[in-house]
Amino acid sequence: MDLTKQDATKKHSNSTQSQHCFSAADQQGLYKAIFNRRDVRGQFLPKAIPNETLSRIIYAAHHAPSVGFMQPWDFIIIQSHDVKKQIHQSFAQAHNEAETMFEPSKQQTYKNLKLEGIIESPINICITCDRERTGKTVIGRTHMKEMDLYSSVCAVQNFWLAARAEGVGVGWVSILHHEALKSTLALPDNVVPIAYLCLGYVSHFKDKPELESANWLARSPVEDLVSFDSYGKKAETKEQSSLVSQLQADKRFPSLFKL
Amino acid sequence: MDLTKQDATKKHSNSTQSQHCFSAADQQGLYKAIFNRRDVRGQFLPKAIPNETLSRIIYAAHHAPSVGFMQPWDFIIIQSHDVKKQIHQSFAQAHNEAETMFEPSKQQTYKNLKLEGIIESPINICITCDRERTGKTVIGRTHMKEMDLYSSVCAVQNFWLAARAEGVGVGWVSILHHEALKSTLALPDNVVPIAYLCLGYVSHFKDKPELESANWLARSPVEDLVSFDSYGKKAETKEQSSLVSQLQADKRFPSLFKL
Repeated sequence: MDLTKQDATKKHSNSTQSQHCFSAADQQGLYKAIFNRRDVRGQFLPKAIPNETLSRIIYAAHHAPSVGFMQPWDFIIIQSHDVKKQIHQSFAQAHNEAETMFEPSKQQTYKNLKLEGIIESPINICITCDRERTGKTVIGRTHMKEMDLYSSVCAVQNFWLAARAEGVGVGWVSILHHEALKSTLALPDNVVPIAYLCLGYVSHFKDKPELESANWLARSPVEDLVSFDSYGKKAETKEQSSLVSQLQADKRFPSLFKL
Repeated sequence: MDLTKQDATKKHSNSTQSQHCFSAADQQGLYKAIFNRRDVRGQFLPKAIPNETLSRIIYAAHHAPSVGFMQPWDFIIIQSHDVKKQIHQSFAQAHNEAETMFEPSKQQTYKNLKLEGIIESPINICITCDRERTGKTVIGRTHMKEMDLYSSVCAVQNFWLAARAEGVGVGWVSILHHEALKSTLALPDNVVPIAYLCLGYVSHFKDKPELESANWLARSPVEDLVSFDSYGKKAETKEQSSLVSQLQADKRFPSLFKL
């Protein structure tokens, strides 16, 4: 990333035409990140992530939307082997408990899936939500109390996309007990863990989500997920039908950006 | 967006070098979307959004990460004036209730803020989460039951970034009662509304978040939000201090991508 201020200034002179719709090249950069992002568990390399790179990824997360401009997130960066080992033990316990929850026919498949890279990834990061960051009453959170949690999730997604663009793999580990995370990371009562992420360079990014490749579940046809004016109400007007047709015609749109 | 299959094939021949770290141009596209995304309330134009554009934005949302590959989201596209009016009434009621929750000194400022564009935006979209989409036991959701909600939030963030790249403004309206949304949109019991979004072309995108410009709250220095191995634990090693210095040095990083 060599973008200098000079480049930025040059670009600025184009701002009137480019302020709204991005150029095809800029759109491509975003869509590449979206369609090539993967939940990485098994391909981590020990190579260190430079602080220059990590800083950019954290800035991307920090510019997520947040309800009432709360910015409720914190970033706990974990490199201590002892802390990683404790988290890994919590994972192992939860993973054992999880196995028995699946139907017997699925238990073996579940056991064979690699679901975390806590120890082998060079950095773990926990992104949290401080539910009291800006006092009791928050604009936009008066009726939907969960909005601060969702803000931190938006930060996670920005983080993940920026990491992908920087060539860094991210895996979200959710087979953990909240209480174990809270005690290992010494989170105060008002701070909720949102995402425990494993971070590192990778040997390769997989072409598809692993659960899709493993035939655990298929990608849903997106046109089945769209309804109009009311839940599940199918297209009735010409305009609505034309959106459904467009979604069907665009089935290969994501694959145009595959690397 | 004129990317043809031919372009994509051409790009594919570079895949070994480009599979990991994106080119500076591609990174720029992503960072532009992240740093120029705004929560839009007041600048909507009546101009219709072509279905071609809407389809691409929905595909971006559909390729969000999801726990256990649940893809728990639905997209309810609202253009009916009657439905918009009902939602706007719910907003108005909640907004009145909200006003009284702020300290008297802040009530006038709160009242003057424009917090939604339900009627004037050409399209409203509600993104939801079907908590039972793929059965009772979901990989990665055995211990953190909220993970499906978070997956739908990741879809919202992808949607928002893609809309920005397409020149389309998005505003997230959260001053609404869940029950009002559920009844107006006929959501089944197992479907939770995650985000009610107003969508449309805009006269302009604001330079900064509106609550920042209004001095409601300031942008937090990101280095204050980073800790190491345990919540709130400041940098101790040389490596940790160097990350903090890097974050301070990068303070102007987001502004390099301003349009």
